Amino acid sequence: MTTNRKAEIICVGTELLLGQIVNTNAAWLARELSLLGIHSYYQTVVGDNPGRLADCIRQAIGRSDIILLTGGLGPTQDDITMAVASSVAGLPLKLHEPSRAAIADYFQRIGRFQVTSNNWKQAMLPDPCIVMPNSNGTAPGAILETRQGDRTVHLVLLPGPPSEMTVMFRDQAAPWLQAQTTARLRHVFVHMIGIGESAAETALSDLIERQSPTLAPYASEGEVVFRITQAVASDDEPDTTQAMLDEVKRRVGQHIYEVGMRTMPEVVRDLLIAKNQTVSYAESCTGGLATGQLTDFPGASRVLKGSLVAYANGIKQELLNVPVELLEREGAVSEACAARMAEGCRRLFSTDWAVAITGIAGPDGGSDDKPIGTVWLAVSGPDGTVTQQLRQGGNRARIRKVSALKAHDLLRQQLVK
Amino acid sequence: MTTNRKAEIICVGTELLLGQIVNTNAAWLARELSLLGIHSYYQTVVGDNPGRLADCIRQAIGRSDIILLTGGLGPTQDDITMAVASSVAGLPLKLHEPSRAAIADYFQRIGRFQVTSNNWKQAMLPDPCIVMPNSNGTAPGAILETRQGDRTVHLVLLPGPPSEMTVMFRDQAAPWLQAQTTARLRHVFVHMIGIGESAAETALSDLIERQSPTLAPYASEGEVVFRITQAVASDDEPDTTQAMLDEVKRRVGQHIYEVGMRTMPEVVRDLLIAKNQTVSYAESCTGGLATGQLTDFPGASRVLKGSLVAYANGIKQELLNVPVELLEREGAVSEACAARMAEGCRRLFSTDWAVAITGIAGPDGGSDDKPIGTVWLAVSGPDGTVTQQLRQGGNRARIRKVSALKAHDLLRQQLVK
Repeated sequence: MTTNRKAEIICVGTELLLGQIVNTNAAWLARELSLLGIHSYYQTVVGDNPGRLADCIRQAIGRSDIILLTGGLGPTQDDITMAVASSVAGLPLKLHEPSRAAIADYFQRIGRFQVTSNNWKQAMLPDPCIVMPNSNGTAPGAILETRQGDRTVHLVLLPGPPSEMTVMFRDQAAPWLQAQTTARLRHVFVHMIGIGESAAETALSDLIERQSPTLAPYASEGEVVFRITQAVASDDEPDTTQAMLDEVKRRVGQHIYEVGMRTMPEVVRDLLIAKNQTVSYAESCTGGLATGQLTDFPGASRVLKGSLVAYANGIKQELLNVPVELLEREGAVSEACAARMAEGCRRLFSTDWAVAITGIAGPDGGSDDKPIGTVWLAVSGPDGTVTQQLRQGGNRARIRKVSALKAHDLLRQQLVK
Repeated sequence: MTTNRKAEIICVGTELLLGQIVNTNAAWLARELSLLGIHSYYQTVVGDNPGRLADCIRQAIGRSDIILLTGGLGPTQDDITMAVASSVAGLPLKLHEPSRAAIADYFQRIGRFQVTSNNWKQAMLPDPCIVMPNSNGTAPGAILETRQGDRTVHLVLLPGPPSEMTVMFRDQAAPWLQAQTTARLRHVFVHMIGIGESAAETALSDLIERQSPTLAPYASEGEVVFRITQAVASDDEPDTTQAMLDEVKRRVGQHIYEVGMRTMPEVVRDLLIAKNQTVSYAESCTGGLATGQLTDFPGASRVLKGSLVAYANGIKQELLNVPVELLEREGAVSEACAARMAEGCRRLFSTDWAVAITGIAGPDGGSDDKPIGTVWLAVSGPDGTVTQQLRQGGNRARIRKVSALKAHDLLRQQLVK
């Protein structure tokens, strides 16, 4: 097999074409291909229309070697991908007995006994093909082989629902794809905060120009991530990513909060677990968002005792003991109020740490003195209270999101001290 | 102009091709086209490569009449869309003086005085074209006209950043597109809860088969939305959507929570504002998510006094006065605990209403008796406390999201009584 097989992605579904759902599958698959070292040059969305789908597949066969298709493997009349792909590849459909049995088994497991004849359609697979059983649904996937001139072209058919597609890809398609190429990539992801992407690029510019391992910015919402990638011919080849990582750390180490795949709330959770300490949050403008981010991940219950969304000033007074004179004198969006909120929160929940967030997220409530985007953070802990002011641009959603992220980070900074 | 111009969408950018960002632009534009009554049959993503981009544009010109392109209008060397589209359309680039002045003005406004020569590239526009000034950035958009056989084909070039693209499309491209077609559509969106999509389709099946106005399911995450659409030749034509809406209401009215575009938290907020009442939340498994949803929208401060994330049982006891015997006897995920949480929350925050959510979101913590997905909701108000049990499938994220939605809905039901 050659190492330079070109890939592309075709997503099938009228609901995508009408914009009723966002095409997260294409981005997810593109990212996985890139991590496997396989280049992809096109993504296409086409509806449940046999003629147009066949045209798209033919075009892709003409210009790419591996074509990933998602969607249209279900039981309804609109689900045509398997039939159209088989027809374009010149392969007949044939009942695949293990898939038929798996479908029967699936329905028995979920307690549905009326299986319509449509469901058996999903066991009609191209002959020959590599069948990929579906551990999360009824539609099996398939890998078909066809020829285009002197090239071998593979069609990799995956289901549309992301929960089925991602598992089938990782467990079955990815190992097959990896076997198609001699390229192996080692990746290290470096997550930074408190530095902009362009400032990081400037600090690392000569490293970014190096060839192996490569260092490249990796777009990620609300944070700066760089990816170190080493291409190796075999797993025995010495790892050069570590030397690059050390150099990156030497230059921008104070901004690195994670080498790996964890998000900021997961890093904070793990630091607290390691110290066997607890946390609580007092949120004003973020209105529960910071706590919601922490509880997005399992294991939050080991460190989070609770949080107070103190939206009204009365709540800040009564439950967090922020003095009314302080609120009148300095306002709720002030360093002193943030500090008192964090301290009151720490007492209220009896936690080792407490994080407070108070600010103006907009669209109303700004002033010359405290424009929209002004946010005060405070973290109260065993050694006292630290505060931080943010002044951010962007809309309400962005201000809230970045405030929550920076609040987690302020706690993280205390935890790694 | 004919009424049946076919459209397609091309999104340009290597970051899309690498899966570094999800292509929300394609879904957004597809939805807008559909609301304008314009059919689109393909979406393509291609990288910042002149040859491949030109191929994609040529192919689109061969099969569509209106081609929307996003991305690649910026100042860098990788931004090639304007130049490639002009070249394919056979139009020269020429300095567009008002755009040059707008760019200079933009930089002055944001206080940046070092404008690189690249920035002026963005004022080089096809001649002739319709220029669409960019109110949120420096890159103007453009509408180019070219011929394909006896067809007139238009290329509509929009910037890639969604904040720039959506405003330019709504303010400038959409009115132009509307003028391209004699079709006018009247839309009414009907949001339902407490009924599955297939049950709703069954109840409305004969209406769905009618031709004008049409009734169709409108995919929307976590809720059921139907769209009533009337095609009219002029604005004077009588409105028939209301009669259809009345019939939909007659059949499934008890499930309709919104006729329009508001989300569930916005509906709840507006009901509370109208009654001049306040609310607080006591969240366990949702960990701040329900409050976070309410505070996503401006105006939440008029109705929300605060919320307690009572993650640890100790917090439920101490701050919400849930008796320790009750927790020991029935567990935190129980009807009695939910009711006590809501009542304790209402007292703690002195609000008219309080909403409590306690459940098992997984991936751990389930039992035979209380499997993952078991959630108890309670709403305490002036007339007492109501409770509701949920048993949901899906993963942690889905269980949390649906629990928050249903909790808002339980409050809504009390508010409309």
